[in-house]
Amino acid sequence: MKRIISILAAALLGLPVFAQQNLFPSQDLKSAIVNEDGSVTFNFLAPKAHKVQIVGDFMEGEKGTNIGMASSGIVDMTEGEGGLWTYTSKPLESELYSYTFLVDGIATIDPNHPYVFRDFATLTNLFVIPGGMGDLYSVQKVKHGSVTAVWYHSDGLGMDRRMNVYTPYGYESNPRKKYPVLYLLHGMGGDEDEWKNFGRACTILDNLIAQGKAEPMIVVMPNGHAGMSAAPGESDMGYYKPYHFQQGTMDGTFETYFPEIVKFVDKTFRTQADKAHRAIAGLSMGGFHSAFISANYPDLFGYVGLFSAAVGVTREDISPIYQNFDAKLAVQFKKGVKLYWMGCGNVDFLYKNNKALREVFDANGYPYVYLETDGGHVWKNWRIYLADYAPRLFK
Amino acid sequence: MKRIISILAAALLGLPVFAQQNLFPSQDLKSAIVNEDGSVTFNFLAPKAHKVQIVGDFMEGEKGTNIGMASSGIVDMTEGEGGLWTYTSKPLESELYSYTFLVDGIATIDPNHPYVFRDFATLTNLFVIPGGMGDLYSVQKVKHGSVTAVWYHSDGLGMDRRMNVYTPYGYESNPRKKYPVLYLLHGMGGDEDEWKNFGRACTILDNLIAQGKAEPMIVVMPNGHAGMSAAPGESDMGYYKPYHFQQGTMDGTFETYFPEIVKFVDKTFRTQADKAHRAIAGLSMGGFHSAFISANYPDLFGYVGLFSAAVGVTREDISPIYQNFDAKLAVQFKKGVKLYWMGCGNVDFLYKNNKALREVFDANGYPYVYLETDGGHVWKNWRIYLADYAPRLFK
Repeated sequence: MKRIISILAAALLGLPVFAQQNLFPSQDLKSAIVNEDGSVTFNFLAPKAHKVQIVGDFMEGEKGTNIGMASSGIVDMTEGEGGLWTYTSKPLESELYSYTFLVDGIATIDPNHPYVFRDFATLTNLFVIPGGMGDLYSVQKVKHGSVTAVWYHSDGLGMDRRMNVYTPYGYESNPRKKYPVLYLLHGMGGDEDEWKNFGRACTILDNLIAQGKAEPMIVVMPNGHAGMSAAPGESDMGYYKPYHFQQGTMDGTFETYFPEIVKFVDKTFRTQADKAHRAIAGLSMGGFHSAFISANYPDLFGYVGLFSAAVGVTREDISPIYQNFDAKLAVQFKKGVKLYWMGCGNVDFLYKNNKALREVFDANGYPYVYLETDGGHVWKNWRIYLADYAPRLFK
Repeated sequence: MKRIISILAAALLGLPVFAQQNLFPSQDLKSAIVNEDGSVTFNFLAPKAHKVQIVGDFMEGEKGTNIGMASSGIVDMTEGEGGLWTYTSKPLESELYSYTFLVDGIATIDPNHPYVFRDFATLTNLFVIPGGMGDLYSVQKVKHGSVTAVWYHSDGLGMDRRMNVYTPYGYESNPRKKYPVLYLLHGMGGDEDEWKNFGRACTILDNLIAQGKAEPMIVVMPNGHAGMSAAPGESDMGYYKPYHFQQGTMDGTFETYFPEIVKFVDKTFRTQADKAHRAIAGLSMGGFHSAFISANYPDLFGYVGLFSAAVGVTREDISPIYQNFDAKLAVQFKKGVKLYWMGCGNVDFLYKNNKALREVFDANGYPYVYLETDGGHVWKNWRIYLADYAPRLFK
């Protein structure tokens, strides 16, 4: 094609002219650098700032909860030459951590580390310390499952609703194989994307399955706010500023119409469509949902997992779903539960509620597995719980 | 469950205690408010800042390209009471727009508008003005297709690689129906997530199909950097700071092994697996890829779309894929092309290259459709091109 002008010069220049978006060149730094000893160095260029702080869930310090991160510390960064603010943490154990900056009191994400998760209206940066649990939360050189955002129609709720579905590696290439299903429910501050993002559920399952620790399973992540059709930004509400409590939150309707989700999944995916191959679990509000859904529909789920569950919140006046829980639980155990799993952090604000539930189980002789961890009502614990719960399923 | 402590009080308080993440309370404002006249008001609280600016692709002004947004203007915001900085745009035509703030020269996203797209290392906020093209780029109350992130194995590249696949509404519920396929390729600054995010490809297809303007089709969005297994953050490279030109960019390998992708898609999804039901298109580098892939494999694609294509970049020394393009093009047209579509902005830096290619087509009598739009090498144009191209396919 000799008539076409050669712009080989562009190639010699590295062809950056074709980039639609460049980095912020004013901040061409590296930040959240994981050092060899497991400490992490943060850099932020702000020559005109009076004070730059870092808020993160990886350090002690003045509590930073008021800017949106549970169980976070806040520390001042040190200003160096040219307005370069730095901070190096102490060596950290292997984990997935979150952080954000405060520049003269204004929260901002790290422009030199573009990985953020959104949870409703909050964006936070994140990084991983490898070598332990962090490896389980990181994409590894293993075979990967697929993740599908798919919409189902709810007759009960009168709308199409979005869910995420993980299918394990091999699902496409073994077209006759059927799989067990874990229904994995988010908390009040989340949506159908929460377990995929903060929860790293798909990556955890990829890794557990590759290690032979968990059975290949489908994981279904629906939206637990019955009034929402989809996560903020994914619905016809557009790019509004999201708040919790849109509608249909813990009012019984999500639980009432949950069988529609099971029916859709069994019809749409190649499932082992029986109680022995069906599990449910959720964090916080999702644990509350898991308890009531499994108790109200005792023939659906062989496995139940409550992760820091929001149990003990009396809602009996709101929906029949929440009435006679004791009696429903008795029926559920009489009909058979393969595994009832509970986990809670030792400083979780719901610790007492979960303890009260365990006492009910103890008093009635209902068997359960319990895992108590350090810490509070945080993602770190819910990822640990999934990593403990998933390997126990369908065996 | 009477033994469990009632914390109805929490319910009366609105239950925010269950939220894992709250908004930044220091910035509990609304921003990017679309006013009735189509103007947009931005708010940013920064009492200690000396200067707050807004950079956006919706306004004239000093060019803001140095902070990463092509064809953006930059204007000062006005400080009001309590350090609240505001700016209201002029009325805007219906579109999807991008913006970010500069606080004393430091780029930051809008903490009161959490919708951002990532393109490699850059995050930008976005908003939509409804009533025209913006509606096509917004989720509407129509039936939605599914979007699956799936990994295929490339023997040629020696790795598993991630792609996004859109399947139209009805794909799951019509298990015998086969669909035509559009392969949609990103630019040099992008990855397999780019068309899904900035490009709004899945939403555009949902809407065009619902309106009866486009045939239901599968859209396959692979990663065009042959050295990358997946988008930054989705691969085993972890949360590194991404740069363009990792490796395998425009070196012929992506094009050489493209048939592996077609083979995987035809095996994994229910496709109409012939040239008459297969289209390819791409923006910038993706247009370059589309031209060379379709010319080197003239039996694969009945439809070809070049969106602001990076044509005329001589790469003949690098790979046989890039050699003898004129002769390959002649064979391609002799074998038959149902549609060769080109689009370019009138101030695109690749305008001359595309003009030169059209002259080759004119000189040889190769038929093509051409759409010239205002503006440069920007997403606005590429979305318009997809909206023009997709309805012409498979009819």
